Amino acid sequence: MSQKLVLAIDAMGGDAAPAMPVAGCDLASERFPFVEFLLFGDEAALAPLVAKSKYLGARARIVHTPDVVSGDMKPSVALRAGRKSSMRLAIDAVKDGLSAGVVSAGNTGALMAMAKIGLRMLPGIDRPAIASFFPTSRGESVMLDLGANVECDANNLVQFALMGEVFARHVLGLPNPSVGLLNVGSEDMKGHEELRAAAAILRDTHLPIRFHGFVEGDDVPAGTVDVVVTDGFTGNVALKIAEGTAKLYSGFLKGAFASSFLAKIGYVFAKSALAKVRLRTDPRRYNGAMFVGVNGIVVKSHGGTDALGFANAVGVAIDMVTHGFNDKIKAELAHIGTPVEPPAQAAAAAG
Amino acid sequence: MSQKLVLAIDAMGGDAAPAMPVAGCDLASERFPFVEFLLFGDEAALAPLVAKSKYLGARARIVHTPDVVSGDMKPSVALRAGRKSSMRLAIDAVKDGLSAGVVSAGNTGALMAMAKIGLRMLPGIDRPAIASFFPTSRGESVMLDLGANVECDANNLVQFALMGEVFARHVLGLPNPSVGLLNVGSEDMKGHEELRAAAAILRDTHLPIRFHGFVEGDDVPAGTVDVVVTDGFTGNVALKIAEGTAKLYSGFLKGAFASSFLAKIGYVFAKSALAKVRLRTDPRRYNGAMFVGVNGIVVKSHGGTDALGFANAVGVAIDMVTHGFNDKIKAELAHIGTPVEPPAQAAAAAG
Repeated sequence: MSQKLVLAIDAMGGDAAPAMPVAGCDLASERFPFVEFLLFGDEAALAPLVAKSKYLGARARIVHTPDVVSGDMKPSVALRAGRKSSMRLAIDAVKDGLSAGVVSAGNTGALMAMAKIGLRMLPGIDRPAIASFFPTSRGESVMLDLGANVECDANNLVQFALMGEVFARHVLGLPNPSVGLLNVGSEDMKGHEELRAAAAILRDTHLPIRFHGFVEGDDVPAGTVDVVVTDGFTGNVALKIAEGTAKLYSGFLKGAFASSFLAKIGYVFAKSALAKVRLRTDPRRYNGAMFVGVNGIVVKSHGGTDALGFANAVGVAIDMVTHGFNDKIKAELAHIGTPVEPPAQAAAAAG
Repeated sequence: MSQKLVLAIDAMGGDAAPAMPVAGCDLASERFPFVEFLLFGDEAALAPLVAKSKYLGARARIVHTPDVVSGDMKPSVALRAGRKSSMRLAIDAVKDGLSAGVVSAGNTGALMAMAKIGLRMLPGIDRPAIASFFPTSRGESVMLDLGANVECDANNLVQFALMGEVFARHVLGLPNPSVGLLNVGSEDMKGHEELRAAAAILRDTHLPIRFHGFVEGDDVPAGTVDVVVTDGFTGNVALKIAEGTAKLYSGFLKGAFASSFLAKIGYVFAKSALAKVRLRTDPRRYNGAMFVGVNGIVVKSHGGTDALGFANAVGVAIDMVTHGFNDKIKAELAHIGTPVEPPAQAAAAAG
């Protein structure tokens, strides 16, 4: 951990860029003094921000980039028009070995498209997935895919399961993480054909995975399994429903504490205990979605987060780098060979 | 409302049947004195429960049925083996005009299969959907499908949108309810082909629907639209994730209030305000999922609920009956004709 580590930052991505990413890197500099930052963006805008930062000055280098990928740009347009953008050149720094990973709060679709093109996929992985932590009653779980792939076949889901398991074992440090497939029931015959085929592969092969079977929506916050695998459509809806429900609940609570004189007094007494709940459910704490499956460490921060949230996303990238996440996946896949049965067999096993 | 209304009750369905459904009908009897109950189930078990009930005695009639559909019975098995079951005969009472609707806390898949076979579909509706209320920051929304159909095509989604709109207008009493399709982004090109095709139909035709467009997961608890339309897989996961997240959050809170002496004092002061939040988010309050699209009023109660939850499900059935929900749908469909474009046109419109 005392070794130097270089991260590339897309300093122009996010609602409040470049001030927010620079402030986030400043916070991260305090927390991770062994990290150096390559800040990609408009030099004229970045230089004064870095100059007035507290810790970042000595540890940041600005790389001027003339273009910015906007939040509403289609991925295909961003690929063509964004060759000189802060996002693309930050990714290229990873490809060229100048940086160990990249963090961006910019356009998710564009970042994914550029990461796929710029870094390519890990050998044995067909599609990337977006993975993130999820608070549960037992601690936290990893869930993927949260939106990279609207549709997934059985092999994609099996590869996500493998990558999620490696993540939970090596980055979260769980000795024998359990893996579940998100479905509408726990019985074998439930759900889409792709899910049943993926379950058959995960159950029957020689994969070094503790496969729990199907889990349902309420199992995710309950923490029934350490790794929740799903397609990007379901995962994206699930993540946003959970965030929205937490917000709804906390709005109800705020209203309750403001609703009477007695309740206001109650709030004063319970304040520090409630602050711990707020801390534990703070979305900034879970900021930093990992693009797994691409041949390089790429972390996407929420576009609307603040410096603290961005610093957490930087922390996620550092965790993935220091634990050699991608090397572990490569080693795992080299060890077990192709984990996927031919589709015909998989379908037969499921039927 | 002073008219007599007869409801059929599957008194043997649910984890704590028959005691729970009978106690639920007793509670409902107090609330809805104009309702008479046909209790289908084991007479020997039901008679003493009814005898010791507070309000139900004079308003219930027991119809003895020898068989019970178990919770883990496959729908196909239940259809064959359950012809003399409390569930099936309660449904048949609706078909035969002896009852205005049926409520069951039993096996969901079996209830749906029996409702489809026993009652058939409404003219113009291809598939039934499970609909329920959802608490939002603006009040409550209706969401469907919550699990009847793992896969849905564009026409199914359009029919769900129509039925949900009629429900929100006539049963919830909203003058001009808005309808949204659940997706992973609000832009036109997002999501599955079926979703884009359904959106094209809802946007372009002469349907009397205020179509908002696509909504995302966090729009559901935010109450962005009054009716949220989705396929049964996504809807089921969404519902259970929301329930699980609310439970997680309330567990965190309980822990916080127990964590220190000061917090315990705070709880005492805030207790009555917090009780209101608990009431507002009480899952029993939202108990009672409607099977829309079948030609009869069918309400499914949560199997693990208590008497209060079951009474709420009975209330949902009464609301649907008194507002003539199915007649309103029939009238709407007769008025607008077939709302669905041929698939080729729909696909072209979406592309």
